[in-house]
Amino acid sequence: LKETVPGSSAAADLRINIDRLMARLFELGKIGALDGGGVSRLALTDEDKEARDRIVGWMRELGLTVHIDGIGNVIGIRAGSEEGLPVMVGSHIDTVATGGLYDGSLGVLAGLEVVQVLHDAGVTTRRPLAVAAFTNEEGARFAPDMLGSLVFTGELSLEDAYDIVSIDGERLGDELERIGYRGDASVGGLAPHRYVELHIEQGPRLEAKGITIGAVTGVQGISWTEISIQGVSNHAGTTPMRFRRDAGYAACVIGSFVRELANTIGGDQVGTVGSLELHPNLVNVMAERAKLTVDLRNTDENRLQKAEAELSAFVDRLAKEEDLKIENRKLARFEPVEFAPEMIDRVEKTARSLGLSVERLPSGAGHDAQMLATLCPTGMIFVPSAGGLSHNTKESTKPEDIEAGANVLLKMVLDLAS
Amino acid sequence: LKETVPGSSAAADLRINIDRLMARLFELGKIGALDGGGVSRLALTDEDKEARDRIVGWMRELGLTVHIDGIGNVIGIRAGSEEGLPVMVGSHIDTVATGGLYDGSLGVLAGLEVVQVLHDAGVTTRRPLAVAAFTNEEGARFAPDMLGSLVFTGELSLEDAYDIVSIDGERLGDELERIGYRGDASVGGLAPHRYVELHIEQGPRLEAKGITIGAVTGVQGISWTEISIQGVSNHAGTTPMRFRRDAGYAACVIGSFVRELANTIGGDQVGTVGSLELHPNLVNVMAERAKLTVDLRNTDENRLQKAEAELSAFVDRLAKEEDLKIENRKLARFEPVEFAPEMIDRVEKTARSLGLSVERLPSGAGHDAQMLATLCPTGMIFVPSAGGLSHNTKESTKPEDIEAGANVLLKMVLDLAS
Repeated sequence: LKETVPGSSAAADLRINIDRLMARLFELGKIGALDGGGVSRLALTDEDKEARDRIVGWMRELGLTVHIDGIGNVIGIRAGSEEGLPVMVGSHIDTVATGGLYDGSLGVLAGLEVVQVLHDAGVTTRRPLAVAAFTNEEGARFAPDMLGSLVFTGELSLEDAYDIVSIDGERLGDELERIGYRGDASVGGLAPHRYVELHIEQGPRLEAKGITIGAVTGVQGISWTEISIQGVSNHAGTTPMRFRRDAGYAACVIGSFVRELANTIGGDQVGTVGSLELHPNLVNVMAERAKLTVDLRNTDENRLQKAEAELSAFVDRLAKEEDLKIENRKLARFEPVEFAPEMIDRVEKTARSLGLSVERLPSGAGHDAQMLATLCPTGMIFVPSAGGLSHNTKESTKPEDIEAGANVLLKMVLDLAS
Repeated sequence: LKETVPGSSAAADLRINIDRLMARLFELGKIGALDGGGVSRLALTDEDKEARDRIVGWMRELGLTVHIDGIGNVIGIRAGSEEGLPVMVGSHIDTVATGGLYDGSLGVLAGLEVVQVLHDAGVTTRRPLAVAAFTNEEGARFAPDMLGSLVFTGELSLEDAYDIVSIDGERLGDELERIGYRGDASVGGLAPHRYVELHIEQGPRLEAKGITIGAVTGVQGISWTEISIQGVSNHAGTTPMRFRRDAGYAACVIGSFVRELANTIGGDQVGTVGSLELHPNLVNVMAERAKLTVDLRNTDENRLQKAEAELSAFVDRLAKEEDLKIENRKLARFEPVEFAPEMIDRVEKTARSLGLSVERLPSGAGHDAQMLATLCPTGMIFVPSAGGLSHNTKESTKPEDIEAGANVLLKMVLDLAS
């Protein structure tokens, strides 16, 4: 292997191999593949285990030292010419139940591709490099989302995390044990020097404007509430409308209100009722119980609090008017995060230096990066999502955009680790 | 056994044995009993089979000739002193998933009690008597409801009925075969002279007015529609509100609208969304698909049609506004039924002759009686429901009210069969 000196013009000319990166994306996408496209790889399932095994295998092939910490985060380390804090890149490999090939996986596999380019070119960076795949970023099976990075940063204890129960009734600690990913490495023992995450935008903005790279300014605040409604089950034909205590009706009214609330608050505010269940769920019986979730997000903490307060007041009023018992439970709450200006600038400058169009924008989705931002200066690189689709089996990003984003990542890693 | 001559004053003094009737109600209620009270005995399940076996056993003990017809209706015949069309009483023994002990079972077991009183008193009526338990009245597992009596009256063919698929994916004909209740008796081979059904009111009106007996004037028309919504699944955080094609939101808006629709049409109109399901049903993913049912009822056919038309127009508008594909499927449709005036009069007069308070009222629920009304003059006797509750595990009726209702049934049967 010839040696390329970091910071040299030869190092500046290094580029990622898009065919190799796409091949790994498609190979990983086969694990948990759904008929007709897309992926279902919920956290700590058999599919997640298989995908983790693949990632660990690739890390070992690239000569990385693999650490599995107590919450199952998989971190591959490449030594630098000096000791010190590593430059970390990464994301997650779990998906929602009807997910795509790119959300999360891109950040991890682009990290491996960066390492492979350095490996093939014989480049040793001054600082160590780390490639991380964080546990349960989606929160689709265990709430809250971004759980692995939350534990990594010390904001959630291992003990509390282990006791979280999944939507299918399994304890997180037991599932981690079952798939063999409750590791020995101390959690957060690897504080990074800088963290950079490449991710698909998952929204329509870059594509709509024909921009290739997003320099992410921060992440929306996220508020998840589970609302449980207790009414009285009764016969749909014989119960006059005014006598009803219908949990199903109340759930529907809340579902309508959330849209109205988001529109009234305006700006970046979004609101979604993605999950709603009735019991006994029969055509001719009004529901005795209903359970639904409300997902509220805003880049502005004050407005997000206003949205939460208005939802809560609406639900209280509804409970009184309809004579129902309604309970709220917070499933997740994250304040908006602003990334370090030096890192936003760096994404922007790096993209420009590669001749790529770039625009600053906030992230609508939560990301592991927002957790890492509490530990070190953190940046995120977005690439466009076709049709703005994500959390959808048709999620996709053009190979040329992935190549562009991965090259920004490669150049940032080289600069930060020099 | 001494002989009591029907029509004699000795016969007029006959009364049902409430302890025996309550004992049978509680014994049948053990089959499919739920922890904490109530019953789950969905049509053609193992529980339904066990309950049918018990009914057939009791019929045989009372010397009835048992006929099982092609749709599984169980009919016990007691010979009269003359040949001819029987006076039929009955109801059903299937329940909803969270049902009570009285809905349906009361009409069948009161019929057996009437036979037992006549048996013990040595009374032979002029006309034969028939006690019927009709298949799948609830429609909670197979739509439409009142399926056994619908086939009995010839309005639904056996072949079409067999091909109906349950909510758990089983074919009706196969399930009937599996539990051993696809019988040989020809369907509808037993046209009755008159049909009388004793049933709980399942609503709050009799109890609210302190009335013991309801003389049922007819049954509300019923319209069941299944609405399937196809939207686009996307990320709850990154998709601006104006770009959403959210099937879950549309389902909620329809659920809210149905209440508004019932209130606007007013009068007897009721409307219920009892079943609603989202896919993928996750907190941070807007639903790609939603499926819900709408149950609309009115005693007036024109108003019911108006409600259906307004619902349909609303759904069409919503599909256009939200850029969704929405399909409607009729699960059941019955026009309002008016019982024969002679039978309404007869319930009222019989109750008065026994010193019982009585009031005319329509039925909000569908009943086998409305199907039988197309074959012969038909009457229904209602007794009060505590708190107006039904299709609820807490459903109950006071023993003295059950006794009163069963005595009205006994006297009507004696009069009609003489």
